Amino acid sequence: MTPSEIRQTRLPNGLRVLTDPMDTVETVSVGVWADVGARHEPAEINGVCHMLEHMAFKGTRRRSALDIAVEMEDVGGHMNAYTSREHTAFYAKMLREDLPLAVDILADILQHSVFDPEELERERGVVVQEICQSLDTPDDIVFDHFQATAYGEQSLGRPVLGTVDSVRRLDSGIVGGFQHTHYSPERLVVTAAGRVDHDALVDLVTAQFVDLTAQAPDSGQPARYTGGEHREARDVEQVHVVLGFEGVAYDDPDYYATAILATLLGGGMSSRLFQEVREKRGLAYTVSAYATSYVDGGLFTLYAGTGPEDVAALTPVLCDEIAKVRASVAAAEVARARAQLRAGILMGQESTGGRCEQLARQVLVYGRPISNEEVLAGLEAVDEAAVLRVAGRIFATAPTLAALGTLDGMEPLERIRARL
Amino acid sequence: MTPSEIRQTRLPNGLRVLTDPMDTVETVSVGVWADVGARHEPAEINGVCHMLEHMAFKGTRRRSALDIAVEMEDVGGHMNAYTSREHTAFYAKMLREDLPLAVDILADILQHSVFDPEELERERGVVVQEICQSLDTPDDIVFDHFQATAYGEQSLGRPVLGTVDSVRRLDSGIVGGFQHTHYSPERLVVTAAGRVDHDALVDLVTAQFVDLTAQAPDSGQPARYTGGEHREARDVEQVHVVLGFEGVAYDDPDYYATAILATLLGGGMSSRLFQEVREKRGLAYTVSAYATSYVDGGLFTLYAGTGPEDVAALTPVLCDEIAKVRASVAAAEVARARAQLRAGILMGQESTGGRCEQLARQVLVYGRPISNEEVLAGLEAVDEAAVLRVAGRIFATAPTLAALGTLDGMEPLERIRARL
Repeated sequence: MTPSEIRQTRLPNGLRVLTDPMDTVETVSVGVWADVGARHEPAEINGVCHMLEHMAFKGTRRRSALDIAVEMEDVGGHMNAYTSREHTAFYAKMLREDLPLAVDILADILQHSVFDPEELERERGVVVQEICQSLDTPDDIVFDHFQATAYGEQSLGRPVLGTVDSVRRLDSGIVGGFQHTHYSPERLVVTAAGRVDHDALVDLVTAQFVDLTAQAPDSGQPARYTGGEHREARDVEQVHVVLGFEGVAYDDPDYYATAILATLLGGGMSSRLFQEVREKRGLAYTVSAYATSYVDGGLFTLYAGTGPEDVAALTPVLCDEIAKVRASVAAAEVARARAQLRAGILMGQESTGGRCEQLARQVLVYGRPISNEEVLAGLEAVDEAAVLRVAGRIFATAPTLAALGTLDGMEPLERIRARL
Repeated sequence: MTPSEIRQTRLPNGLRVLTDPMDTVETVSVGVWADVGARHEPAEINGVCHMLEHMAFKGTRRRSALDIAVEMEDVGGHMNAYTSREHTAFYAKMLREDLPLAVDILADILQHSVFDPEELERERGVVVQEICQSLDTPDDIVFDHFQATAYGEQSLGRPVLGTVDSVRRLDSGIVGGFQHTHYSPERLVVTAAGRVDHDALVDLVTAQFVDLTAQAPDSGQPARYTGGEHREARDVEQVHVVLGFEGVAYDDPDYYATAILATLLGGGMSSRLFQEVREKRGLAYTVSAYATSYVDGGLFTLYAGTGPEDVAALTPVLCDEIAKVRASVAAAEVARARAQLRAGILMGQESTGGRCEQLARQVLVYGRPISNEEVLAGLEAVDEAAVLRVAGRIFATAPTLAALGTLDGMEPLERIRARL
């Protein structure tokens, strides 16, 4: 393993630059992560962050959309981007000698995009197709229903892509204005991992990121979990069931205990849900549990896809497993979950892209890089009592149920609630 | 980059063991790849390879399904498997000190699985759910339709998962018998990449893989591309269009030229299809072209997902782009595609899993490891004339069209054929 020698610099304008050097590779991953996501959007322009992510590739004052694509791919690099509920990311991976080009393009698309109205009109069509693809994918859209039910009308409940209606409302002025007001230096972090020299990157970023406009931070609406139920009857082969609860924020003292709970309940082939739902009963191909954190809240989710004839049997089994994990947790399970999480962290260190992204997310969420040692110590401190305590805490919250498919056989939420 | 120092050993029984050491990581990926896939299945038991892949995790003479899962995850490792039309793979990634455990489990599940009938009954339910998930995912199932149309009634045209009907016919004797007749030492290769010592791995494999039964090789039905058309009317938001042609086999002299053709036509943001279909016209979110090879044939595929109101415009654009690439190819495009493929190869070298799998596939397909230098030289030798020649060859074959969605606006295959 390359020893981690992370360095960080805060530029005078507030922009943070961090590097995680690996001298055993010939490539480097570099990216700009913005503390800006769907939860920072007003409802009427839901999807603006994602549209902005798309439009950043559609032309700047000195580059056409084709130029952006060609310059990077000419040197064999590739650039991509994504939007989540809290963050937007623009990143690239390339051979080490092409880092200056990547920084130049990232700086250009984030400061000098022109948001041409004709380009936006065409890109609206692309985004509408992306939304339609999501609507057509049952095990994708059911999670949007779940999110909307868990957070009611709040911004954290809205889809990252927006809706066909909200995307129709976006225009060049709205998208450009949103970048201007939200992409301030304090809300951005530039990270690189791989074959990179810290001082050289700081010089490149200092020279290129000079046109960001400073603005006050905006943490979006606070997360207020509500719970509830959403059912969509759809004539498809499978029934998708998402059963969730209020989880924990990134900075919650129970953060690591929650990660261990999710892993032992539904994180791998040895997990309780995999063994009970798939191995012992053959009810599902996919069954899992996982924890999602936000800066001020979180979700804890169980998911399974089953047949219409089996859904009546599925929800009692999920509730049973919840009752069992609230009642007892074995030391061996906690140790196994910890070993899985530990190995995942060490294996994640092998990829430049993974290290670059992890570093950026840590800085946006915690304000500083978190060493592997700190994470491992956090996991180490979790014992059975801590897992039991967090299970008691999480499963005492109001359930959120989202289901999609042929739902005739599925019991009502009140019945599920009574089992919990 | 870790210099590649691949070593190989053929055991007396014919089993091949290859290692690709990387001394900068603490983990190792190890797997067994079998030259056995859906194309080796008789029609009436289509899906037996995939069922065998599932059943290998359901218990051996000395391990229960739970034991298999727990032993690996206790040490933070993970094990997985997949089935394709030509291969089946079982692989694991773990910390270096746990390699003996991984080899022990792999050897056990591939030689001493018991295929318990009750376990198989439950696993049938799991596989049926996996098939239903695929049927419910438009941009997944359309490719099964495409494959069936390209290869008619041949084994290469059948779905890897099988059908609900064919999976119902599988029993413990069929699955166990198939492993017995097909998993011969000559058809298996064990590879490892990462922190691994070749001699130590050879010793482990020699000691553990002693119960494989030798059988004659079986290359399955020869590939005979037919072409044709399949349309499925389905009430979903998007229309999925797959337009394909006969491609090239792994050992075809045009193999590298075909890879460059696919990349410049639809391999990245600078590709012709991305620029024309997505950037200039906003017709699709996903549009791509790619080449698939088999040992004795191949496919060349264009894919796009669009709206019902845009599908009438889409197919003429795809045909136009085919006509254009048959007419002229620029040196700069070829150079860019080559740079993309080259960087992809170098970046792939950074992951233990990627190197382990690549090595195994090369040995199964070519009978030997292929060095990066050889691949890069193959790409280097491709010029514009070679790309034009292969475009002429591929696009002169009979088209295969698979489409799914609201298809009223879509032109008939004869019309598309006339445009080509």
